[in-house]
Amino acid sequence: MKALRFEKDELRLIDDAVIPRREDEALVRVTLAGICNTDLEIVRGYAGFTGTLGHEFVGIVEDSPDTAQIGRRVVGEINAGCGACELCRAGDARHCVNRTVLGIHQRDGAFAEYLSLPPRNLFIVPDAVRDRQAVFTEPLAAACEILDQVEIKPEHRVAVIGDGKLGQLIARVLATTGCELKLIGKHADKLRLAVEAGIQTIELAEIKPNDDAMIKPEMAGHFDFVVEASGAPSGLQLALDLVRPRGAIILKSTFHGQAQLDTWRIVVNEISVIGSRCGRFERALGLLETGSVEVEDLIVGEYRLSDGVAAMNRAQKPGTLKVLLANQL
Amino acid sequence: MKALRFEKDELRLIDDAVIPRREDEALVRVTLAGICNTDLEIVRGYAGFTGTLGHEFVGIVEDSPDTAQIGRRVVGEINAGCGACELCRAGDARHCVNRTVLGIHQRDGAFAEYLSLPPRNLFIVPDAVRDRQAVFTEPLAAACEILDQVEIKPEHRVAVIGDGKLGQLIARVLATTGCELKLIGKHADKLRLAVEAGIQTIELAEIKPNDDAMIKPEMAGHFDFVVEASGAPSGLQLALDLVRPRGAIILKSTFHGQAQLDTWRIVVNEISVIGSRCGRFERALGLLETGSVEVEDLIVGEYRLSDGVAAMNRAQKPGTLKVLLANQL
Repeated sequence: MKALRFEKDELRLIDDAVIPRREDEALVRVTLAGICNTDLEIVRGYAGFTGTLGHEFVGIVEDSPDTAQIGRRVVGEINAGCGACELCRAGDARHCVNRTVLGIHQRDGAFAEYLSLPPRNLFIVPDAVRDRQAVFTEPLAAACEILDQVEIKPEHRVAVIGDGKLGQLIARVLATTGCELKLIGKHADKLRLAVEAGIQTIELAEIKPNDDAMIKPEMAGHFDFVVEASGAPSGLQLALDLVRPRGAIILKSTFHGQAQLDTWRIVVNEISVIGSRCGRFERALGLLETGSVEVEDLIVGEYRLSDGVAAMNRAQKPGTLKVLLANQL
Repeated sequence: MKALRFEKDELRLIDDAVIPRREDEALVRVTLAGICNTDLEIVRGYAGFTGTLGHEFVGIVEDSPDTAQIGRRVVGEINAGCGACELCRAGDARHCVNRTVLGIHQRDGAFAEYLSLPPRNLFIVPDAVRDRQAVFTEPLAAACEILDQVEIKPEHRVAVIGDGKLGQLIARVLATTGCELKLIGKHADKLRLAVEAGIQTIELAEIKPNDDAMIKPEMAGHFDFVVEASGAPSGLQLALDLVRPRGAIILKSTFHGQAQLDTWRIVVNEISVIGSRCGRFERALGLLETGSVEVEDLIVGEYRLSDGVAAMNRAQKPGTLKVLLANQL
């Protein structure tokens, strides 16, 4: 089968990859996959992953030990736990220390004709959800994770830093709480997309012209919650400027390497900095099914899997929103 | 009056300081005061404070608009709020943006014969609490703040990093929860003090011989809560090694400048990093009154206020625990 693989520090489309097949797992024919910043980071050498890339997908179950899944359209939770540890037995493999992660850690991913996942990782996609929506389930679930970690109420002021793929999804998910929300970004065109989706936006230059500038006084400590989704260390410093004493910063970006941080500001103002990663798929599928969150406007390109290298090159360009890979079987 | 002041980048004991007197505030004759790391940081230029140092004290009220306080033995909450903002009206001046802070920010402190504070900042010391205990109320309250921020249960594993003044108090406060507690430090003599106070300890070299070494595997991700009280950026990295996925790091140390931080570890493991500063005095006085927390063993020296410069020099020496300043009137 075709697969877009990262091996020996090189990204290649190969035609003769082995179809992944495990008796205790489901075999999924991938229909559509999405390129995430993590895929781009892996190609830059982050995480030391070798294998088939990709973890955002929608597909059809070709075979499964759970026969009710066969023929169904599914999305998949990317963390496959050991099944034996305390976390796994409690039904949550997301932090199992022996987990494999689809296209990220010791498990071939979704930029291929087929992938394999445990049956319990798969979720049936409701009929009302199109493939081009369903392919956003994984990053949308990651956005929903915030709502499982902090209680955001309509009276709260919330800022999302970063107008990229993840920031856009987070803003749309948090908007469903009815909170007073601002998406802060650098790119007029991407902020415009958010405005069209009903989100209020702020262009960064309006409140902080450069990294060394003081933040506009009326924005300093203005927000109860600040979500950092810019992928840049400067976003974290900005979050410290924006959050009120005893407020919370939710860290969504994983940037490679170390960040410089004024930790004394965290102490003096008693800020909580909360790391946030993968979320529950049920909630994300629910938002898509009810039409509460619009996602298709974020798609900027759709490539055939066989053009996967070109698709990755396109996705690498700064400011690119969601690029998809479609299987033409 | 005598006062130990930091002015023009110089620490000096002066004899003719003006007695602070405000009609709407209480005048307190200081009996005993304690030197805190914040005092040492101020003398190194942190916080840009100019004036009389000191914020840990016990004293006698000489005069007060609240006449019931006159003649009583008191300790004092160090944050004096504006009284008008939302936080102050809710009875908590600790994060009032216009607050002054005793001996730290725009308010002369406790290393003097007299100090002035609003009557609402003062707390009567129970008769059963000796002066040499009461002088620990402020840092003990800061330790208690952790219990107001996270719920520590007997089944939780908790590590406190740092065997200095603050780490010792935190360990003793957290031990009252019955949790499985370890104090981690570098100094055999200070760890021994903790053992004598009933605390289990770990010498850092046993689990991580140097900053670049990997942590001993059985300690990696072992703790539900890790309190960073070492005052060094390396303590924060160690905390990231020790805390379990979805666990919490409580940041107590304010070290000057920026720290390098692997923020991706916070994201991937969904760690919460919680800044923690001043706490409620009631709880700390309760712990002292009931004898739940022993503090006097932490005192290593007691100087007269007139020898304040020598006392500060002593306190500056690495590894020094609590140095007190006594007024001999």
